[in-house]
Amino acid sequence: MSRKKVAISLGDPAGIGPEIALKAALDPRVREISDPLLVGDRGAIELHARASGLTPEMRAFPNAAAVDWSFPGLKLLALDQFREEPLRLGKIAAAHGRAAVEAAGTAIAAALAGQVDAVVAAPQTEAAIKAAGIEFDGYPSFVARCTKVAPEDAFLMICFDDKRIVHATLHVSLARALALVTKERVGKVIAAAHDTLTRIGIARPKLAIAGVNPHAGEDGMFGDEEIRIIGPAIEATRAQGIDAEGPFGADTMFHRACDAFIVMYHDQGHIAAKLLARNRTAGLTIGTPILFSSVAHGSALDIAGQNRASPEAMVEAVRRLVGAAEQRAA
Amino acid sequence: MSRKKVAISLGDPAGIGPEIALKAALDPRVREISDPLLVGDRGAIELHARASGLTPEMRAFPNAAAVDWSFPGLKLLALDQFREEPLRLGKIAAAHGRAAVEAAGTAIAAALAGQVDAVVAAPQTEAAIKAAGIEFDGYPSFVARCTKVAPEDAFLMICFDDKRIVHATLHVSLARALALVTKERVGKVIAAAHDTLTRIGIARPKLAIAGVNPHAGEDGMFGDEEIRIIGPAIEATRAQGIDAEGPFGADTMFHRACDAFIVMYHDQGHIAAKLLARNRTAGLTIGTPILFSSVAHGSALDIAGQNRASPEAMVEAVRRLVGAAEQRAA
Repeated sequence: MSRKKVAISLGDPAGIGPEIALKAALDPRVREISDPLLVGDRGAIELHARASGLTPEMRAFPNAAAVDWSFPGLKLLALDQFREEPLRLGKIAAAHGRAAVEAAGTAIAAALAGQVDAVVAAPQTEAAIKAAGIEFDGYPSFVARCTKVAPEDAFLMICFDDKRIVHATLHVSLARALALVTKERVGKVIAAAHDTLTRIGIARPKLAIAGVNPHAGEDGMFGDEEIRIIGPAIEATRAQGIDAEGPFGADTMFHRACDAFIVMYHDQGHIAAKLLARNRTAGLTIGTPILFSSVAHGSALDIAGQNRASPEAMVEAVRRLVGAAEQRAA
Repeated sequence: MSRKKVAISLGDPAGIGPEIALKAALDPRVREISDPLLVGDRGAIELHARASGLTPEMRAFPNAAAVDWSFPGLKLLALDQFREEPLRLGKIAAAHGRAAVEAAGTAIAAALAGQVDAVVAAPQTEAAIKAAGIEFDGYPSFVARCTKVAPEDAFLMICFDDKRIVHATLHVSLARALALVTKERVGKVIAAAHDTLTRIGIARPKLAIAGVNPHAGEDGMFGDEEIRIIGPAIEATRAQGIDAEGPFGADTMFHRACDAFIVMYHDQGHIAAKLLARNRTAGLTIGTPILFSSVAHGSALDIAGQNRASPEAMVEAVRRLVGAAEQRAA
């Protein structure tokens, strides 16, 4: 397997983001399969390295094109984000929000330009981004905007253990989600899941698709979206050679053997994920030209700079993106 | 604790219903807390007893009013259901469907008349009931009809381990479920859950209520049903002294400590129940004047009359109905 270039944006520099980004970038499980590049403020990196007792050999580059990938130490795409006001660990501040968004945007731009193969974003703090006056409602729509994809074409794939759950709709009302479940959107989410799984090394991904109604409508007895919309959308993707099956009742679906479950709305997927996932959950944004993942946990301002944060979720996110888990299982 | 009189209807006599009803009625865990009364065809009981090598002392009574509750052996409310055609184990037949419905109806009538304290129904076979030309879409609405309650006022409460999940709506399309989530209905389901839990011995039941939208709408950002309907309905029941909290996002709700979760539609509850419940699931119908439970598994025609069926789900159903699990935990 070739080593992939993975840009890791620091997230909120006042939280645990830089600490877990550093720890993940130095982790043998990450270095074995990828060349990590940290993206963010240089001072923030140095501050968190000191706080965690880490003294890696480090080299800073001004942009992604200038990176010397043969350098064996810690590579840093260095931004200079705290000239005007200082970084204050554990606090919510507009400067921290701007820094997190700039770092993620820089990493995404490098992926779009083909300078890195994938992007992992450390946790942001929504209140800090809001304080900066920046519109932000989660990474999937942010990644869509940065990559010039319509927000409705980007989907969230939650990964944990040997399971992946893809959401056809996400942060909209249930009534709106029902209206958004069209043949076009179901076709797009199936194609996006198939495309992503293929890119991370699964030769012929097997997909199970949920209905929206109880028992997937039970032959039209409890609603006909499965007959009018979801069933035909699945058939259309099958005709293109995609191994998609369903629609299945969402309550019995999660015991099936498949590479990804595709659900129609937030709670169908999140109820299952929150009950099943013990740890190491990664959230991939799919449907855009780039491979992008964030971690499921938050920026944990309360323990920032204390060398107490575990990089496991971030290590898992990198491994997910470069297909390491899949290669190992194959 | 006083011993409760529990009528156990045989379900489909061609399936495992009579076998598990017999085994449960003879089980020390059931007899310790209740006086069971089997309701169904006498010949069917004798057939299944022989097949399972059981030779209980048995006495048949013509109706519930005539039962001598001091008789220590197996008490039977004897119906005579197979004069015209024979019972055929493992087969689907109209006579079997009629027998299951008649036995359940007889047991429910005894509960309505105050002759028994609760009813447990053994598994029916929907195809057999359909073959008999009888309308049947699950026990909750059947119990509602038998007890002269509007079908929309009866609710399903799934019980397993230390959890209970109550459904405000059930076998309707998701769009229809959204329309059915009114302030009146949410108030009724909360009151029905509170009433049932009080009757089975929980002095002050604690209820957690779900929203319909992601994160329960997140202050109206993703839908306003929580603000317009569910929140006010919860407030109204709290004003009546009921310990109801919410609305909560359904994905994070199931980790809360409470006596029952109330969900708004089928998949919210069933995804959680199917992922969490290992065994011994009981389905209580609440919101009617009687205490009624069925078991979650089917009639298993393929192993009928082979002494291979476990009565655990039925034992658990009886214990749930008479509040034994709750008393023990208190």
